[in-house]
Amino acid sequence: MDAAEFRRRGREMVDYVADYLENIEQRPVYPDLEPGYLRSLIPSEAPLEPESYEDVMKDVERVIMPGITHWHSPYFFAYFPAASSYPAMLADMLCGAIGCIGFSWAASPACTELETVMLDWLGKMLQLPECFIAGTDGHGGGVIQGTASEATLISLLAARCKAIRRVQATNPEISEAEVLSKLVAYTSEQAHSSVERAALIGGVMMRKVPTDKTYAVGGHMLKQMVEEDKAAGFIPFYVTKHSGIECVCLFQFCATLGTTPSCAFDHTTELGPICNDENMWMHIDAAYAGSAFICPEFRPLLNGIEFADSFNFNPHKWLLVNFDCSAMWVKKRTDIIGAFKMEPLYLKHENQESGLVTDYRHWQIPLGRRFRSLKLWFVFRMYGLKGLQAHIRKQVALAKEFESLVRADKRFEICAEVIMGLVCFRLKGSNELNQNLLKKITKSQEIHLVPCQLSGRFVLRFAICARTTESRHIQQAWRHITQLTFELLQEPSH
Amino acid sequence: MDAAEFRRRGREMVDYVADYLENIEQRPVYPDLEPGYLRSLIPSEAPLEPESYEDVMKDVERVIMPGITHWHSPYFFAYFPAASSYPAMLADMLCGAIGCIGFSWAASPACTELETVMLDWLGKMLQLPECFIAGTDGHGGGVIQGTASEATLISLLAARCKAIRRVQATNPEISEAEVLSKLVAYTSEQAHSSVERAALIGGVMMRKVPTDKTYAVGGHMLKQMVEEDKAAGFIPFYVTKHSGIECVCLFQFCATLGTTPSCAFDHTTELGPICNDENMWMHIDAAYAGSAFICPEFRPLLNGIEFADSFNFNPHKWLLVNFDCSAMWVKKRTDIIGAFKMEPLYLKHENQESGLVTDYRHWQIPLGRRFRSLKLWFVFRMYGLKGLQAHIRKQVALAKEFESLVRADKRFEICAEVIMGLVCFRLKGSNELNQNLLKKITKSQEIHLVPCQLSGRFVLRFAICARTTESRHIQQAWRHITQLTFELLQEPSH
Repeated sequence: MDAAEFRRRGREMVDYVADYLENIEQRPVYPDLEPGYLRSLIPSEAPLEPESYEDVMKDVERVIMPGITHWHSPYFFAYFPAASSYPAMLADMLCGAIGCIGFSWAASPACTELETVMLDWLGKMLQLPECFIAGTDGHGGGVIQGTASEATLISLLAARCKAIRRVQATNPEISEAEVLSKLVAYTSEQAHSSVERAALIGGVMMRKVPTDKTYAVGGHMLKQMVEEDKAAGFIPFYVTKHSGIECVCLFQFCATLGTTPSCAFDHTTELGPICNDENMWMHIDAAYAGSAFICPEFRPLLNGIEFADSFNFNPHKWLLVNFDCSAMWVKKRTDIIGAFKMEPLYLKHENQESGLVTDYRHWQIPLGRRFRSLKLWFVFRMYGLKGLQAHIRKQVALAKEFESLVRADKRFEICAEVIMGLVCFRLKGSNELNQNLLKKITKSQEIHLVPCQLSGRFVLRFAICARTTESRHIQQAWRHITQLTFELLQEPSH
Repeated sequence: MDAAEFRRRGREMVDYVADYLENIEQRPVYPDLEPGYLRSLIPSEAPLEPESYEDVMKDVERVIMPGITHWHSPYFFAYFPAASSYPAMLADMLCGAIGCIGFSWAASPACTELETVMLDWLGKMLQLPECFIAGTDGHGGGVIQGTASEATLISLLAARCKAIRRVQATNPEISEAEVLSKLVAYTSEQAHSSVERAALIGGVMMRKVPTDKTYAVGGHMLKQMVEEDKAAGFIPFYVTKHSGIECVCLFQFCATLGTTPSCAFDHTTELGPICNDENMWMHIDAAYAGSAFICPEFRPLLNGIEFADSFNFNPHKWLLVNFDCSAMWVKKRTDIIGAFKMEPLYLKHENQESGLVTDYRHWQIPLGRRFRSLKLWFVFRMYGLKGLQAHIRKQVALAKEFESLVRADKRFEICAEVIMGLVCFRLKGSNELNQNLLKKITKSQEIHLVPCQLSGRFVLRFAICARTTESRHIQQAWRHITQLTFELLQEPSH
């Protein structure tokens, strides 16, 4: 395919994309097919000779579309939103064409520099403390990671490295492996599974702090657990030259603002000082809810950020920037860079020792990286801060609308305070009843949701996801749910 | 921006992309600017109100393009290629529009299933042993990772998990942390920096095996080092119930086919049996060279793959699939899944216990993932196997052409056998002389290359990168290099 054909096919694809998104609500939101459906629909080997583009596009409708869960349907209420907007898609086209691999400043200076400045823009939109902003006298800065899981892992590895160095600074005879074997991290029992997975990858122990009745961790809960663990001899101490005894082993706490099950908010203003006192790295994971902090009315939920060592949220969830784009800030750049730095000659460049450049490969797990800040730039400029705030507010209002519908029906209960765009609800009654309701919902293919578990109860999560979801979709979804509930309750078994 | 405006802007962007790529050789391949150039060119904060799209696109030329290292210029010879083709870009547009996050089968069945089948197609193109192909009776299969670094890390973590379980199966009293502290992995001293980094992240020791004069590791070198390490008490042993004594501690060897400095090939047919005998997981990293194995004449270099536990290469380097798309296969799916499995309720779905579905989130570091197999599908079908083979062969021929030019000039020497699309060469003389030549080349902005170090010598790497590089660009590049050499040798200091 040459440039001339690309011009033609590209236009067709633009129209295909626009048609797809304009008519998406006509498609069943969730596919009805059996695992393995696709293999029999296409050949078992790649073709030897080129095929026609028409045949490929025909197969998109024949093979792919029947197997798609349509995340951008206004009837998709599952998981958390995956952001999508036209400006982000245009920026992604440009990103693909430039096709640079921005592992170092020299590999494409614009790729690195736009990222640093866009993370500053975004940090200012969130009113992050100055120490997190790169273009200040501070030592911090931002980076785009692929996912929040990677940000969580990176923060754990940076904290691990820092703790090991701290022990070895005063106890050089202790091996890295020995320190590693004694490190203990903490997180909420409601934290995302990726937090526990990060500990598994990092080879450190992770303890889960119980939550209060709002599913959040407060300061006294962390403090009590740490004290109990110390008393039980669960947390080993190191003798240090300066302070006598120090528990470097308590090396990280990962707080969550907007948990995945119920969008609960850990009390970071209480947790922060404890982490600082205990010399624990505090990472704040606000993967979903973080986008809302651009609205002044939600910003208080981020209070306590001043105590954090690192902070992360996903513009690719709720800020209209297509996946992947997870924004992460650290208070001290050297903490994160120091954990990974490797300098083979083939990656060296003239400017890297000047102290002026950022080589983002030291900030992340992969080496290669795409020019993702273009998406932020296009979206920020095409929406403006006000446009982005309007998007957040509209989706929160839709969640409140759904909450009202649920509250008005005595057969149902709301299971967690509705703060953002997520409503946790259930039929009063057994878990089995709610499981059956969800099965009916999934089977109907009209709307799509997923469950969670709260205090041992099976709960339905209704998340406002698509950019194009309107009040009429909420009303229709609720009519559908109550209709299926009616049918369910008619069944002899109930 | 609504769908109607996207149709218009999308067409304009398609034309911008086509124009950019058609005229790319008119641009200086490497930018001439100082670190920090970008910050002063744009505001220090995001706009409050939306801006016009025209203004954004004007800034692409004003702000971004001057800071781009043009990886797809036919005069770009640095690093390794970043693949780019029109069919892949079209597929990426579709991927962005579908915008599903394919962490589980249910999150979009087509996303998972096309990936499994495309990795089978690709595996068959490489003539991988059947045990790596998912659609067989074997236990293996393929997955798309973001980068080779992630594949290397995943393989190390899977091997680590397997080794720990093996020790604990017979010695349940030994803690995970204790086993971890004793694990030793091996790799070539010429392996990519990401291999060492994986060991750092995984918290295990890594030993570097010296290479022969072709910069490759042969069987006797690994064997000798392992024996020496055993004799020196460097490798601890575990007593097992079955075999008496076993060194589980030797848990992985990472072989490279096509090293980054010089594209050397470790002797996997010799290394494989040693790994199998010693119960070491063998991972083969063929990030760059792997694409060439679709040509029968290069396939013998992959012999020994039958001994490997995992194998990885990057279609996003040399197989015309835009970044990111790193293909990884494992011999036993359970090895990789077992290392990471976490099952929160909000990610569960009906079919996952059927044994028929693949939930790729267990195969990778991040949770979220894009629909990247669309790119493979479009590229395989629009080029056909023959078209892809022609691309590889053409680029190897261009490297040979450049090699001949270097060999014909007595002032230069070739520093490593030219097997694929990389030529390592230098001026006969000091490292300083070659460093100065490279500085001149970089400064001229006409062509772009990066150096490497081979046997302590500073060497220039000339990699055929852009899809559109032709003989005339090679000839022009060589004229340019010899011109700069002439100038350099005229300078009084030489």
